[in-house]
Amino acid sequence: MTKHSGGLDDVGAEEKKECTVTFHPDNQVVTLAAGSTLLDAAKSGDVPLNASCNGKGSCGKCKLVVVSGKVDHPSTPLLTDDEKKTGYVLACQAKLSGDVTVRIPEETLEKKLQVAGMGAEVTDRLKGLVAEITLMHESVSLELAPPTMDDAVSDLDRLNRGLKQQGYDLDRMNMGLRVMRDMASVMRSQNFHVTAHILKKRCSNEVVGLNAGNSAGPGLGLAIDVGTTSIVVYLVDMTDGTVIAATAGHNRQAACGDDVINRIVCSEKDGVKKLRTMALATINGLLNEALFAAGRDRREVTNIALAGNTVMTHLLLGIEPRNIRREPYVPTVSEFPILKAIEVGIKADPDAAVFIMPGPAGYVGGDIVSGLIYTGFHREEAMTLFIDVGTNGEIVLGNNQWLLTASCSAGPAFEGGGVRWGMRAEEGAIEKVAIDEDTMVSEISVVGGKPARGICGSGMIDLISEMLMTGVIQANGKFALDADHPRMAAIGDEKAFVVATADQTSVGQDIVFTESDIDTIIRSKGAVYAGFTVLLRQAGIDFSMLDQVIITGGFGQFLNIEKAITIGLLPDIDRAKFKYMGNSSAAGAYMALLSEKHRKEAVHVCNSMTYVDFSSNNEFMSEFTSALFLPHTNLEDFPSVRRSKRP
Amino acid sequence: MTKHSGGLDDVGAEEKKECTVTFHPDNQVVTLAAGSTLLDAAKSGDVPLNASCNGKGSCGKCKLVVVSGKVDHPSTPLLTDDEKKTGYVLACQAKLSGDVTVRIPEETLEKKLQVAGMGAEVTDRLKGLVAEITLMHESVSLELAPPTMDDAVSDLDRLNRGLKQQGYDLDRMNMGLRVMRDMASVMRSQNFHVTAHILKKRCSNEVVGLNAGNSAGPGLGLAIDVGTTSIVVYLVDMTDGTVIAATAGHNRQAACGDDVINRIVCSEKDGVKKLRTMALATINGLLNEALFAAGRDRREVTNIALAGNTVMTHLLLGIEPRNIRREPYVPTVSEFPILKAIEVGIKADPDAAVFIMPGPAGYVGGDIVSGLIYTGFHREEAMTLFIDVGTNGEIVLGNNQWLLTASCSAGPAFEGGGVRWGMRAEEGAIEKVAIDEDTMVSEISVVGGKPARGICGSGMIDLISEMLMTGVIQANGKFALDADHPRMAAIGDEKAFVVATADQTSVGQDIVFTESDIDTIIRSKGAVYAGFTVLLRQAGIDFSMLDQVIITGGFGQFLNIEKAITIGLLPDIDRAKFKYMGNSSAAGAYMALLSEKHRKEAVHVCNSMTYVDFSSNNEFMSEFTSALFLPHTNLEDFPSVRRSKRP
Ligand code: FES
Ligand code: FES
Repeated sequence: MTKHSGGLDDVGAEEKKECTVTFHPDNQVVTLAAGSTLLDAAKSGDVPLNASCNGKGSCGKCKLVVVSGKVDHPSTPLLTDDEKKTGYVLACQAKLSGDVTVRIPEETLEKKLQVAGMGAEVTDRLKGLVAEITLMHESVSLELAPPTMDDAVSDLDRLNRGLKQQGYDLDRMNMGLRVMRDMASVMRSQNFHVTAHILKKRCSNEVVGLNAGNSAGPGLGLAIDVGTTSIVVYLVDMTDGTVIAATAGHNRQAACGDDVINRIVCSEKDGVKKLRTMALATINGLLNEALFAAGRDRREVTNIALAGNTVMTHLLLGIEPRNIRREPYVPTVSEFPILKAIEVGIKADPDAAVFIMPGPAGYVGGDIVSGLIYTGFHREEAMTLFIDVGTNGEIVLGNNQWLLTASCSAGPAFEGGGVRWGMRAEEGAIEKVAIDEDTMVSEISVVGGKPARGICGSGMIDLISEMLMTGVIQANGKFALDADHPRMAAIGDEKAFVVATADQTSVGQDIVFTESDIDTIIRSKGAVYAGFTVLLRQAGIDFSMLDQVIITGGFGQFLNIEKAITIGLLPDIDRAKFKYMGNSSAAGAYMALLSEKHRKEAVHVCNSMTYVDFSSNNEFMSEFTSALFLPHTNLEDFPSVRRSKRP
Repeated sequence: MTKHSGGLDDVGAEEKKECTVTFHPDNQVVTLAAGSTLLDAAKSGDVPLNASCNGKGSCGKCKLVVVSGKVDHPSTPLLTDDEKKTGYVLACQAKLSGDVTVRIPEETLEKKLQVAGMGAEVTDRLKGLVAEITLMHESVSLELAPPTMDDAVSDLDRLNRGLKQQGYDLDRMNMGLRVMRDMASVMRSQNFHVTAHILKKRCSNEVVGLNAGNSAGPGLGLAIDVGTTSIVVYLVDMTDGTVIAATAGHNRQAACGDDVINRIVCSEKDGVKKLRTMALATINGLLNEALFAAGRDRREVTNIALAGNTVMTHLLLGIEPRNIRREPYVPTVSEFPILKAIEVGIKADPDAAVFIMPGPAGYVGGDIVSGLIYTGFHREEAMTLFIDVGTNGEIVLGNNQWLLTASCSAGPAFEGGGVRWGMRAEEGAIEKVAIDEDTMVSEISVVGGKPARGICGSGMIDLISEMLMTGVIQANGKFALDADHPRMAAIGDEKAFVVATADQTSVGQDIVFTESDIDTIIRSKGAVYAGFTVLLRQAGIDFSMLDQVIITGGFGQFLNIEKAITIGLLPDIDRAKFKYMGNSSAAGAYMALLSEKHRKEAVHVCNSMTYVDFSSNNEFMSEFTSALFLPHTNLEDFPSVRRSKRP
């Protein structure tokens, strides 16, 4: 901003004044016009902040602490008096009027994500899954005969002759001008010994590069899982499928809300490009980390497979997702062509081939198809129920004969959204809870063994199950304990249970669970269970006919099945039928990266899935209502839970 | 250049000083470092100047007149004393040492080219030639059913369904991200009534655009002939093939020499990109003129066909042509894929399809293939000799059974190159000459009826034939007239014949023809005739077996067949067998523009031509030597010439 101050200090320019915001602990500095919010400042400065409700002021997740300076802030029940006293504000509500320094408090601070197992472990888990490696972008070394007066065909014809001898179909071979431009020199620089780089698309191939000499080799690959919450990148040696590095990080789009609906809303307001940039920044950052860790160069990366839900892939590719949230919920694209890295924006070899997992519907996307590829149940006879409880709750039911799929709008509760102290399953998250039935004191177990700073999905399931079993709450989710019990607290007018006392935490206050939090979880688990019920009924089978239940998604590996059944999230069937499969989306992307067979399989699976829409389904609504109870209104469906419940 | 003058006038910066050159009559101003030549200045300022010998100082074509200021100039026999006195310099030899103003003299000035017949006449000549119009870039209007809950496939699947109903093969259909990005909005803006724009490539199709509503229509097309000397553009209404505007201009590459060899040399020195830019500037300028004349917009142009010799197409596309001039004379590309206008650099619709005429060899290119498409003799039984005497002299012999082709390096003499007062067949060029056998005074006819400023190819043929018939010269090309004859002059030590006296010209001096000029023409016609002879012998036929001789190229329409036979350029056969066909390259491009049949035919013709290389052919050398006589060493081959020659 140019100031016309005439040599004097700038005064009286209040209205258009720019304010400087400094974010601790990383000292990022952002300058923005007065009247903007701290969330605006965080977004524009690319400061990672979780704005779960996309700035509506309803989630309370965007807490910051004002260290110096002042902001305008409306009153809110989402902050306790103690918090208000110590300078806590909601970033989305705090308006700038001058320079300010804020601190991202422990409970809001993003910790570095660990992938479940680094390279070597991922390799162990995945490597045997692919029988034969087939590349999308491959290179072929050709020793061509130099031209003579008797064989003076054009350089391109000579190259094509060599490619034909290697079995390429010239009728389906393209070449851009870029390669033609210097091919004469390239071909002559090592006496017509060249390496051609070929991008194999669905319906045609393209020679995308030509080098002198023999530089043929399978290079590196990337398997990318673009989750709404977090993104995982595997860097793979395409020679044998070894995962040489694996990185994971929070999707920077989190600043635009927790769930896909908020992301769409944000894209309609701020433009698709903004969200595309956020996802790309995350992916390219993770790619750089992986390359650095492995000591490799981005130009070596020539094959990429990517899985994400439908909104994630649309946003990543810059494709308008707006109709996904409007009846009849139509995605713009289900099946994508093979793209080039440079078109997508991934900083690999610009001509690297990018395969995007196809997704059958707006709310069942490529991440689910990818999960199927990994779990492989669609290849077998066993009747399978597949559930990915992430921010959405996608379900697939079927086997090698048929596949039904649906999304049950479970919401982001199990990933921490909509729950006061909810957080993702990362460092500082309470992941296990056991309540002493006499003192009602909870024994907690925290990810990373650190002091607690919140509670994750599996912790919440434990907690609610324990509260139910110990009589802290009733089957309707209301507190049975008196308000003056030592383990009870109040947040405004609302009763809350103390999960961890201030001294057990790193946030300087008690971590509590309110009645609204319980209600949020009940609604989430109710939606999932109602989804199961309706989908099975559509198929004409009941829970006893299931041969297996596969659970994937973020919280899978910490989940206590017994307790999940106790609260009515999972059906009360033989526990041996449940299987955890970890991040199935990343694993499926890995398989598609390595093999044309699995890429074709993905397209086939996508086309064979029948999508059932729950949004205007009366049966679903009625089942959902019945499921808003712990474990369920129909207790006969949960015989083992009934038995174990104390008097 | 930043000057550190400390407030004083800049002094003592002689060495790196910049000089300003002003070119009259158009007052273009160019600033360049001292030591550069005036030709450098013209090139860098895009001032059109014909540097026939590419600045070697041997052609004398780059004359400028210094009006004020001074240049450093070595002595040269290429300028007469009179010229030197009046300030004439050779642009390529004149070095800058200070500011200077120069004038482009009449004889060097580029006149606006007229195409042979404007739109309507071209239409008359060409329109009937194409039976059915088939587009490369076509648009199709689709009224799709809006999605419902029961039919909620993705927008892309919906579009594909519509395209399939129109007969498109989806297995061969591509689409870039660009179109996908806003297709959701486009499809909804007129209730799923859309127009898809499809680029049909050899092996696959691509949806390159999508509009709301019905904007389908064949649009406009361009047929472009990229000649070494001049470029012709036809703007065509693709509905019915009407040529709605036709423009022509000098290829700006002329500043890099007259012939293709000089252009290659120049591209090796200055980079291919420079010559590419020059050709594109010419094409885009002509396209703009045509669009302006027709009152149309460049976005309407969606189909383009382009013909040029192999060096021209390589340079235009930015492809290295260097090996074309080195044994074994290999072009980089013979057959081009369908390109997009934006890749080529033509300022039409960026996604317009561009078909480039394929060329069988380095010295027989797409312009010749294009000529065949137009003349069509390869479809008939008649044994045909086809000759395009431009800057190169390409010959094709054959019929619907076989085709032999060769290039005979005739040089640019017939287009004015290498001849003192030689010029292209444009305004001010002497195109007909008759010499009075008593006075030896020539009666001349000038293009455009203006005072003469040079002599073109057909004028030279007339002149030499007349000089031979009137005894001005002998059969060996040497002057028979005495040096003191009133119609004789001297250029340095060399004898010359006065073709036009100063008062008949616009250049203020006599237009003369020297013994070297005669020699140049004899060598050119000798090369062409030797080419005929060798090609016919290879095929085992003699001249009497020819059913027709087709003559195309720049001078075709003014050429006097009788006189061309007299000097031994054309064989002495039945005059009725000769046919003028004008600019056959532009006409063939027009046909390929309109019809897939002719595009396929072009590829087929290109592949069926057998190229005969003359460069190291002893038979050709010996025939060439025999042909260095007027009309020929073997007079029995020219019976009618012998008969008409005066005693
Ligand atoms: S309260 Fe600020 S983002 Fe939700
Ligand atoms: S003499 Fe200057 S270009 Fe030929």
